[in-house]
Amino acid sequence: MKKHRIIIDAMGGDYAPEEIVRGAIQACRANRDFQCVFVGVEDRIRELIERYRLKPDRYAIIPAADVIGMDESPKEAVDEKPNASINVAARLIRDGEGDALVSAGSTGATIIACSREIPRIPGIERGVLAAIFPPLHISKSSPGVTMMVDVGATLHCTVNQLVSFAIMGTEYMKGLLAIENPRVGLLNIGEEDTKGHSVLVETNRVLRNLKSINFIGNIEGKDILRGVAEVIVTEGMTGNVVLKSLEGMAEATILTGKQIWKRGVFSKLGILMLAPALKRIKKRVDYSEYGGAPILGFQKLIIKAHGRSKAKAIKNAILLAEKSAQYNMVKQIEEAMKTYYLSLFEHGETGAES
Amino acid sequence: MKKHRIIIDAMGGDYAPEEIVRGAIQACRANRDFQCVFVGVEDRIRELIERYRLKPDRYAIIPAADVIGMDESPKEAVDEKPNASINVAARLIRDGEGDALVSAGSTGATIIACSREIPRIPGIERGVLAAIFPPLHISKSSPGVTMMVDVGATLHCTVNQLVSFAIMGTEYMKGLLAIENPRVGLLNIGEEDTKGHSVLVETNRVLRNLKSINFIGNIEGKDILRGVAEVIVTEGMTGNVVLKSLEGMAEATILTGKQIWKRGVFSKLGILMLAPALKRIKKRVDYSEYGGAPILGFQKLIIKAHGRSKAKAIKNAILLAEKSAQYNMVKQIEEAMKTYYLSLFEHGETGAES
Repeated sequence: MKKHRIIIDAMGGDYAPEEIVRGAIQACRANRDFQCVFVGVEDRIRELIERYRLKPDRYAIIPAADVIGMDESPKEAVDEKPNASINVAARLIRDGEGDALVSAGSTGATIIACSREIPRIPGIERGVLAAIFPPLHISKSSPGVTMMVDVGATLHCTVNQLVSFAIMGTEYMKGLLAIENPRVGLLNIGEEDTKGHSVLVETNRVLRNLKSINFIGNIEGKDILRGVAEVIVTEGMTGNVVLKSLEGMAEATILTGKQIWKRGVFSKLGILMLAPALKRIKKRVDYSEYGGAPILGFQKLIIKAHGRSKAKAIKNAILLAEKSAQYNMVKQIEEAMKTYYLSLFEHGETGAES
Repeated sequence: MKKHRIIIDAMGGDYAPEEIVRGAIQACRANRDFQCVFVGVEDRIRELIERYRLKPDRYAIIPAADVIGMDESPKEAVDEKPNASINVAARLIRDGEGDALVSAGSTGATIIACSREIPRIPGIERGVLAAIFPPLHISKSSPGVTMMVDVGATLHCTVNQLVSFAIMGTEYMKGLLAIENPRVGLLNIGEEDTKGHSVLVETNRVLRNLKSINFIGNIEGKDILRGVAEVIVTEGMTGNVVLKSLEGMAEATILTGKQIWKRGVFSKLGILMLAPALKRIKKRVDYSEYGGAPILGFQKLIIKAHGRSKAKAIKNAILLAEKSAQYNMVKQIEEAMKTYYLSLFEHGETGAES
């Protein structure tokens, strides 16, 4: 069996290249079936690899002289630095030199570079950014992980786009996170099928008729963290703002905790006594467990690891990427999209946007 | 001076009519300059008023036989119950029988009934629903109150609509909540002026040129609770989902607290020691202080009090409504809208939607 090759942007992320290479080496120890293709400044990568004594048949290094910083304008940087590691990595995927791509660099630059170089799955109009997080309140029936898609790649969507989010999210959760029959919810302003603007009403109707999807209907903002659905389908505008607002609220809560801490000895004692419980919660919301946010819709899976990723998160991202190649996830999505489009003709529909 | 008349939907809300009438009576004690016009089931209202001995010159009762429940479909209920209290109340406003309207009933029914009966301010295309809440993290420069507009009346907006939200929000904050020079932020997926879809880019440009608005530029989801702006302008789709998701997160946090409470004696002790600090926070996020959510854009101010409102929230809503009449808020908004439209012609622009 040919070993899969995972392309790794070694220069992207706050702790690149050290933590990226360390994470890759941990992934290599956990799974023998793939090869790492590091893209970046050769000397630095080679030095790290020699320190950890990775066997020569487990890796390759493809030089890339430039790096795109987190504070650069993604579009300009991708244009002006053709030899940036993410550009070189995207071209490797385009040329069939890798089976999946992992980057902890700028999200915008990753999406733009991939959009320019990598063909999409038939029937998918644009690349899609998903976010994966744990619900706060987990019922016994919940697997404890939620994907929201899209979170910023396409701000206002068509019906076909929203349906494709449901299909791609379902395949990702089933294939890579081993979640049986993931529940899909459509984020809307109310639960009734007739709620929302016309695109949402029509998307609801299409998803209700799509047998390959476990559609539970519309869900509301209050349900996002309740673990009622494993895949939350939403327009990118809403998804982006909601995700960031929840992150902001979490940060504000932590700040409030710090202010309480300063208030006096009883407040301090109180927080100390809660420490074990708070630690358990922190462990549950540790994003590094999920390996990062998938960028879906391309002919190969791209995983965008968090910019603050350390070795553990990178390791999990690489293992997920390898699994996507083994599971042949892209092919599964392609088949599901084909089934969807064929179903439109069976029902005598055009799938036209309203 | 003619006394202002505040129309009060006595039948709307979880604690109607008791808490509604009690709140009105508290408002009458706090301010002698207005008359309450109660709309609802006459016998029940009269019985309550007699119990609290409100003077006859302070009130009138307009009978309305029907009530719209919180669980009814708003559109159907407004259609099928012409004598529902909110329908009667909206017609009173239409006929010049009142200067502002307060209801704690169904939000959807309130907006629909008012949209059918009450003329809008010139240049405003639709009624708008605002939400008022306190930021979690308050800097010294923040007045500690934020309005988000729209939160569900218009899901996708035009440039003129978004600009009108900024203008109406500014007038409301200045006139009714006594906030000097309120800062206006446009909710978007990034801070740069060029971020977001074309309507957002154009709205940003228009607001930058509008001298009557203290526009601070685009803000992101993470900024919503940070107190960086007093007026947050957003499309109704995003505003609705974000607001509910933050409410959901707050509820989930409380649930988590309850689970921690059950964990053992140290957890219990910890929470007990934090109780004074938690109480201070709870006081700060008490929605009843703000009197409810304004529905803007109509020729008279409508205040939608929370469905769970008790007397104190109703009292504050009525006092705000009275203040809006005294301040002549609708006239102020009308003038500001006129200035905006004139400015388009001065700059040789059409204000056309992109």
